[in-house]
Amino acid sequence: MKLSDPEFNRLRKLVDEHILDFIPNIDPKSKTLYESMKYSLTAGGKRIRPALILAAVELCHGDASQALAFACAAEYIQTYSLIHDDLPAMDDDDLRRGVPTNHKVYGEGIAVLAGDGLLSAAYEVMFKNMLMFLDDPDALNRRVRAAYALTKGTGVRGMIAGQVADLESENKECSAEMLDFIHDNKTAAFITACVLAGGYLGGADSAMMEDLRVYGNNLGLAFQVVDDILDVIGDVKEMGKSTGQDAEMGKNTYISIYGIERSKERARELLAKARGAMEKYYDEAEVFNFVLDYLESQIA
Amino acid sequence: MKLSDPEFNRLRKLVDEHILDFIPNIDPKSKTLYESMKYSLTAGGKRIRPALILAAVELCHGDASQALAFACAAEYIQTYSLIHDDLPAMDDDDLRRGVPTNHKVYGEGIAVLAGDGLLSAAYEVMFKNMLMFLDDPDALNRRVRAAYALTKGTGVRGMIAGQVADLESENKECSAEMLDFIHDNKTAAFITACVLAGGYLGGADSAMMEDLRVYGNNLGLAFQVVDDILDVIGDVKEMGKSTGQDAEMGKNTYISIYGIERSKERARELLAKARGAMEKYYDEAEVFNFVLDYLESQIA
Repeated sequence: MKLSDPEFNRLRKLVDEHILDFIPNIDPKSKTLYESMKYSLTAGGKRIRPALILAAVELCHGDASQALAFACAAEYIQTYSLIHDDLPAMDDDDLRRGVPTNHKVYGEGIAVLAGDGLLSAAYEVMFKNMLMFLDDPDALNRRVRAAYALTKGTGVRGMIAGQVADLESENKECSAEMLDFIHDNKTAAFITACVLAGGYLGGADSAMMEDLRVYGNNLGLAFQVVDDILDVIGDVKEMGKSTGQDAEMGKNTYISIYGIERSKERARELLAKARGAMEKYYDEAEVFNFVLDYLESQIA
Repeated sequence: MKLSDPEFNRLRKLVDEHILDFIPNIDPKSKTLYESMKYSLTAGGKRIRPALILAAVELCHGDASQALAFACAAEYIQTYSLIHDDLPAMDDDDLRRGVPTNHKVYGEGIAVLAGDGLLSAAYEVMFKNMLMFLDDPDALNRRVRAAYALTKGTGVRGMIAGQVADLESENKECSAEMLDFIHDNKTAAFITACVLAGGYLGGADSAMMEDLRVYGNNLGLAFQVVDDILDVIGDVKEMGKSTGQDAEMGKNTYISIYGIERSKERARELLAKARGAMEKYYDEAEVFNFVLDYLESQIA
């Protein structure tokens, strides 16, 4: 990352330090499973999604350390989706976060299972956390709502729906409406789910939940537009992944439909809307605003 | 199935009739996702796992229809694991439940995503069910325990651990201990999780939970031994999947280590232990005993 922010770094460090703590004890007899999961979990992710969960908890004046299990679960889900997305049958990527993709190191079979393992572990850690609150109905209810939000955003009405639509529209004419559907689901649904999950965990009231929703949705859409732009103008070393892949694979992106300049404009519009949703929280929204600054700096 | 039982058939029918009801509403823009999930869900599974969940609920004098969401979630998990297991990078199977495997019909990319979608849908339906019980702490607690049991049995300390160990020991010398590890995890952990989940949902006391655990564990191990035997002596038409695959792939099975006769003996021993755990429930355990009879008939 080029920009840096002490508050974001604090949350990121918290996630980095505990990212392996919530992986269930895996028997040494299937140690390759653990190693392959660990490989992708510690390959230098930016931890934006888990940091947003923790930031939303703190915006409600909650204790971030109490929400770490959910933050790590979100990173497990993010990492599983990248491992599966990189498979030869999907995006066929050799490089991710600057290192060889999971299947390049462990083979396709293990990569499929490492992804399945991370997705299952995400739920296992959330349920295990819930089990500690069986005698505290309010805390338990907030956790069930948070877990449901994450599942909805990453499941068949969210991220996976977007990935299927994305895969199917390769090398085909794609309407602006379809592109919006892909972006809404593939990227924005999960990011929105993270800030909502943090809101539920922190006990946000309905007005704050609405602000978080507007922030998450606009940030999530901006995220995808910026990603599309960087695939064209970014360089491999800085990105840590192959570039120019979208065009090569016949993917429909903001760039292929609107061109670079209009895409940058669109990204800035979305970031401004997200910023607006957080205005009333002043410097309590530092992490939220930093993520917007960071994205904006990438297309400056 | 050769044998039939009215009680088992009643539960199986309940699952068959509602198997698609709990799939979240998928947008028509990603209709291939829904179609591919539906294809594998309705391809004639025996529904033993969900039926065992419902049977355990009824053993506690609970209402099976109240547990249908969890029963269908278990079948979503079972179906996802089969779709991924059949992939070319794993067992590379062309035939499953008598019809072409998911990736043969929809391609590998969609098959990976259909599996991910089913696994995510399993959790989405369980959380959605929990949301209906936020005001009933006891019912909510039982659901959290049931969901945790299912996750543990099918995750990185259960089914997925077994699949990794299985994949890695192909074409290698395999100790009896390692084979036990594979069977415990690959098959028995999930089946045990189903009867335990039903016990939690139905509110079983600790003595009954222990009986269910003994039943599930022994049935689960027998299941895998019988599956190994049928891979050698079964015929494709009756099995609905390719046979002779294990030897072809250099898999370590009960047969490759112990031979057919000792394997049959072992299966019968395990089935007898499972039967013993249900003895005290007399005819209330009809479904549990039928599943044992069914397995026994297959190796008669």
